[in-house]
Amino acid sequence: MSASTVDPADPVFLLHRGGKLAVAPTVPLSTREDLSLAYTPGVARVCEAIAADPALADDYTWVSHTVAVVTDGSAVLGLGNIGARASLPVMEGKAVLFKQFADVDAVPICLDTQDVDEIVATVRALAPSFGGINLEDISAPRCFEVERRLDEMLPIPVFHDDQHGTAIVVLAALRNAATLLHRKLGDLRVTVSGAGAAGIAVTHMLVAGGVDPARVVVCDSRGVIGPHRTDLTATKAHLAETTNAEGRRGDVAEALRGADVLIGVSGGRIAEAAVAGMAPGGIVFALANPTPEVDPEVAARHAAVVATGRSDYPNQINNVLAFPGVFRGALDARATRITDGMKVAAADAIAGVVDGSLSADAIVPSPLDPRVAPAVAAAVAEAARHDGVARV
Amino acid sequence: MSASTVDPADPVFLLHRGGKLAVAPTVPLSTREDLSLAYTPGVARVCEAIAADPALADDYTWVSHTVAVVTDGSAVLGLGNIGARASLPVMEGKAVLFKQFADVDAVPICLDTQDVDEIVATVRALAPSFGGINLEDISAPRCFEVERRLDEMLPIPVFHDDQHGTAIVVLAALRNAATLLHRKLGDLRVTVSGAGAAGIAVTHMLVAGGVDPARVVVCDSRGVIGPHRTDLTATKAHLAETTNAEGRRGDVAEALRGADVLIGVSGGRIAEAAVAGMAPGGIVFALANPTPEVDPEVAARHAAVVATGRSDYPNQINNVLAFPGVFRGALDARATRITDGMKVAAADAIAGVVDGSLSADAIVPSPLDPRVAPAVAAAVAEAARHDGVARV
Repeated sequence: MSASTVDPADPVFLLHRGGKLAVAPTVPLSTREDLSLAYTPGVARVCEAIAADPALADDYTWVSHTVAVVTDGSAVLGLGNIGARASLPVMEGKAVLFKQFADVDAVPICLDTQDVDEIVATVRALAPSFGGINLEDISAPRCFEVERRLDEMLPIPVFHDDQHGTAIVVLAALRNAATLLHRKLGDLRVTVSGAGAAGIAVTHMLVAGGVDPARVVVCDSRGVIGPHRTDLTATKAHLAETTNAEGRRGDVAEALRGADVLIGVSGGRIAEAAVAGMAPGGIVFALANPTPEVDPEVAARHAAVVATGRSDYPNQINNVLAFPGVFRGALDARATRITDGMKVAAADAIAGVVDGSLSADAIVPSPLDPRVAPAVAAAVAEAARHDGVARV
Repeated sequence: MSASTVDPADPVFLLHRGGKLAVAPTVPLSTREDLSLAYTPGVARVCEAIAADPALADDYTWVSHTVAVVTDGSAVLGLGNIGARASLPVMEGKAVLFKQFADVDAVPICLDTQDVDEIVATVRALAPSFGGINLEDISAPRCFEVERRLDEMLPIPVFHDDQHGTAIVVLAALRNAATLLHRKLGDLRVTVSGAGAAGIAVTHMLVAGGVDPARVVVCDSRGVIGPHRTDLTATKAHLAETTNAEGRRGDVAEALRGADVLIGVSGGRIAEAAVAGMAPGGIVFALANPTPEVDPEVAARHAAVVATGRSDYPNQINNVLAFPGVFRGALDARATRITDGMKVAAADAIAGVVDGSLSADAIVPSPLDPRVAPAVAAAVAEAARHDGVARV
């Protein structure tokens, strides 16, 4: 699509003219007096103070409320590997959502490298400029190593939203669906279709939230993950050891036989016949965007509660329910990391917003519900203190 | 200075609470309709368009009006090497000035490395996120290599303000001082005290503006730079070949003997006796901050026109007269570089703002004069087109 085929009257392109962000001063700078306080010579005293006591940066710079949204453009929406510059509109949109829902200032950083070592070195170098790092749209399996290394290396929170934002909202939705169906999380037989960034993180989060790992079966594109597989990455090999106690083999239909829960984070299609093999009265989350793995109307014939990632069906599982409040809470507590405890607390807070109006068509709040981010932030900050990673 | 010794009622610290910047959305994001245009699924179409035609990023993202202010914290104000985090208040201040004077959005990027290769690799990696790179407070001689390599490598403007912003304003001031004194730039004997970032760039800019290099004498901390010196860096060796045709040797007093112009960009002190040796009715710019190399009242005994970097004396040589308009003009023309022609045009535009009110106490506009940045921007954009580096 060249410039000549973009219809400038298209409302999407009209809205995007000049991008979606700007920087705004929060101090006056009109008079010589203003200049002498906010710039030279006054600013030198602030620099000296921070040089002597680096923690003062939290009080006297914008780091305490600012995160970088960092991508290499390798796994953007349904578009795949489109690279740094083409991914910028998504990152700008992310920054708008951070500000809108949680008053977090976010700066898009789109990197012109897809080498893990270079990504890690670059983010490490720019980290003093920010209070947190939101990794975005970096493809698996590189995203696992990038996040792990940066998390270990940096004294600020590092969080890959495609992994954990999705996982947090899935846990929240599952908790509420289980409550609705009078089931305990620990009794559920769960099938996760997809072992990329989202599938790995969802599995980990469900277990952290109380699902029994022995009763979880995870499938990748080659079928069920278990000890019989000889072709697994380290991350998937860990799943093979800790899930699927029955030792099932085969395809996703085999994985779904008698399952209470299907979490679809794989893209592709899952046949109705496979879904029909689930235990009755179960739960289907078909989260591939824009086309769910199972048509929601089809899923509804075989399950009691159905969710997708789409805004035009009930129960939209949308990461925006998680990431603004997660970072807000982490920043408020000046947390050095985002722990599993903080993620589970976020999920519980999201689920709790629906208390009193829980129904099969309302297991999660609307992504636009203004109660969500503050509730998540409060729960995450408290969990940070409980987990000993808060500096305030 | 620890947290307990910072006086929170100090107006400088009060003003700096929470930093001086925020990010602001420029599009609405309150309804599902808003979300579907600014975020998924609408934003995917913008990403696809840019993936097919990268130049569309200029129209549909914020890069066309956004620069990174990049430092390694190695040469901050009069404080020297204070590192990344402590330099952030200055970079935030810079961003406020960019916005205030030229409506340029600027993001502070303070790097946790002082290795030239790592700085270059990091800025190269993050470059797709921005329309220009303003390098700041990186010490000489590393700053020369960093700027040169990034300028060659990147398709966006790269500009080290401590070098060229200073140099542009010095040229503007000298042009006006020469006009006032009915002298031609090409006839002036000029001494530059200091061969760091500013001194090198000032010398280059004065020559680009019409000063005769043969009549320029540059001093570093060891004295006059000339062919007799055996201890010169490559940059200074180039000066030894192109300036000081007389072959002077010795200290700054020797360099000033009979000089028409002293440009002090060295810090330290220059004795009155040395200034007294200048040709009568000359020009002294004593720009060390906060303490000029020569007291302005002392200089006034020996020169017709005196300038400093201080706001409490007339003729304040302040980079804020240059960098906002320089980047505004470069961004408006979508220039790929900032050429010498663009810098000279900026200097001429700054000098031109004073036309009609030129006097010995007013050779440059006030840093707060709102006419400056638009005049500079227009001149720089035109020069970019003239020099063949403009994309619009």
